[in-house]
Amino acid sequence: MKVLALAGGVGGAKLAGGLYHSLPPHSLAVLGNTADDFTLWGLHISPDLDTVMYTLAGLANPVTGWGLSGDTWVTLEAIRRLGGEGWFALGDQDIATHIRRTELLAQGMPLTEVTERLCVALGIQTRLLPMTNDDVHTEVDTPAGRLPFQEYFVRRQHRDDVHGIHFAGIENAVVPATVTDAIAAADVIFFCPSNPLVSIGPILAVPGLREQLREAKAPRIAVSPLIGGVALKGPADKMMHDLGFEATTLGIARLYTDLLDGLVIDTVDAELAPAIRDLGMQVLVTDTIMHDVADRNRLAQEMLQWSDELRPALAPMH
Amino acid sequence: MKVLALAGGVGGAKLAGGLYHSLPPHSLAVLGNTADDFTLWGLHISPDLDTVMYTLAGLANPVTGWGLSGDTWVTLEAIRRLGGEGWFALGDQDIATHIRRTELLAQGMPLTEVTERLCVALGIQTRLLPMTNDDVHTEVDTPAGRLPFQEYFVRRQHRDDVHGIHFAGIENAVVPATVTDAIAAADVIFFCPSNPLVSIGPILAVPGLREQLREAKAPRIAVSPLIGGVALKGPADKMMHDLGFEATTLGIARLYTDLLDGLVIDTVDAELAPAIRDLGMQVLVTDTIMHDVADRNRLAQEMLQWSDELRPALAPMH
Repeated sequence: MKVLALAGGVGGAKLAGGLYHSLPPHSLAVLGNTADDFTLWGLHISPDLDTVMYTLAGLANPVTGWGLSGDTWVTLEAIRRLGGEGWFALGDQDIATHIRRTELLAQGMPLTEVTERLCVALGIQTRLLPMTNDDVHTEVDTPAGRLPFQEYFVRRQHRDDVHGIHFAGIENAVVPATVTDAIAAADVIFFCPSNPLVSIGPILAVPGLREQLREAKAPRIAVSPLIGGVALKGPADKMMHDLGFEATTLGIARLYTDLLDGLVIDTVDAELAPAIRDLGMQVLVTDTIMHDVADRNRLAQEMLQWSDELRPALAPMH
Repeated sequence: MKVLALAGGVGGAKLAGGLYHSLPPHSLAVLGNTADDFTLWGLHISPDLDTVMYTLAGLANPVTGWGLSGDTWVTLEAIRRLGGEGWFALGDQDIATHIRRTELLAQGMPLTEVTERLCVALGIQTRLLPMTNDDVHTEVDTPAGRLPFQEYFVRRQHRDDVHGIHFAGIENAVVPATVTDAIAAADVIFFCPSNPLVSIGPILAVPGLREQLREAKAPRIAVSPLIGGVALKGPADKMMHDLGFEATTLGIARLYTDLLDGLVIDTVDAELAPAIRDLGMQVLVTDTIMHDVADRNRLAQEMLQWSDELRPALAPMH
């Protein structure tokens, strides 16, 4: 059984963690977003990859969802004293990851291989696959102008209205062979509950990647990141509204009509199930909120079971 | 009163600290060695500049002489777990310095200006002047081959016999205007008790710098780094012996005959004073061991007073 999971940051990492603990070693591959990667202090930061990596390694801070549990802030405070940028919180253990990644990238190693090295060093028995080895940078159009993603998201705390989203460099980004192979090998493909516009969106925007997913033999199942029209974390709901999408689970389904065989929605949104089925996808109604590790594992197991039920029915369609 | 002090690492930094505390703000300039700078984890480390900087800022670790008092090791330990180099001890506060330096250098700022920025941020009211803004790297010939300096010095703990010393890149190194100006403006020039071959040596080897010091109007006074033929710290004695120099304070004097007006030697070496005077320099015999801050300040004040006494006698010679 080979499972591929598309995941962005905190919410996606939680479900990826549930899948990781519900499957035998090396059964899972996680396809991660790199469009919110950025350079701080000269270091290459990959926030989404790291959130997944730390979550799978059991090192993630359970309160924030990002960063490492019990990390300290000595270097950050010293950098601030030395006049460096102090608005992005990097802990001392976390900084080691960025130093090591930056060093290996500077040696010419592709991000795919760098990420694999870091995961192996942390004892993670799965592959974490960057969507591309090329530089892609999400930029957000706001009333304050076009902002680099972390400027919008962290520094300004995603309060600005969003008039547009751009993935700078995406036209030249190449899907790595590791990703193509993982899509081809997958028995089921999950879209974790991540922001559809700035987490899953960039992954699908790498030229050819959406088509590869559309043509995959495996059933493709998403978990809606909206519950009762609200994102549990982050600005997905406001972003969708600002950009003219319906900020509901039905709106989520409409973003993926060409891609999904099934959508997992929260019991709160049960009434939307018929309209979603009318879009041509199956619906599983369950409790999708992941308060704790037990919730993650239960949701992951429900999804794995549902994918087994869906597969025979879908086989003729593929 | 303008004082210029040539200083290498720990021993030199101690006397520089004594001078700093014995003079009005902005009276002292320290000319530092950059030939043991190296790159670790992709970060530009300047061990000698940092030792001086932390000492002047009152932040130096009083036990080791290098690094910061009370620093922690979280990032270093995490880097080791991630497969990075772990043989050079960089604390978390210290790492902030290297990150910031590397970031500013990558933006094209010369090391002179980067160093000034760091010193200002740490509240240091003196100038710390790199000997050059160009890359110079000390290499040491040993039975194990030619080794980068930190490989010889830290990783192999300066146990190897030394067959030769090279300052790679020195032929293209340029004396910064800040250094030329500080030499011209100095009322006295001190050579702190640093390793003559790998700390003071590279400074003097920057093309034109030794000549500028030789032609300086100010009296030039060194403190011997050897006491009874022994270096209090580091391999200066063994290095001198291995390379065929006499590893005594007289041997030190012979290295600088073209440069020095006076040499400060320890009471232990008082018997060498006549032979040193025969080389054409004045001698001050005193206690040169700096156990604590009071010792540093006393030695600095003795030297300042002696330079006042020497100046009138030397004026006609210059």
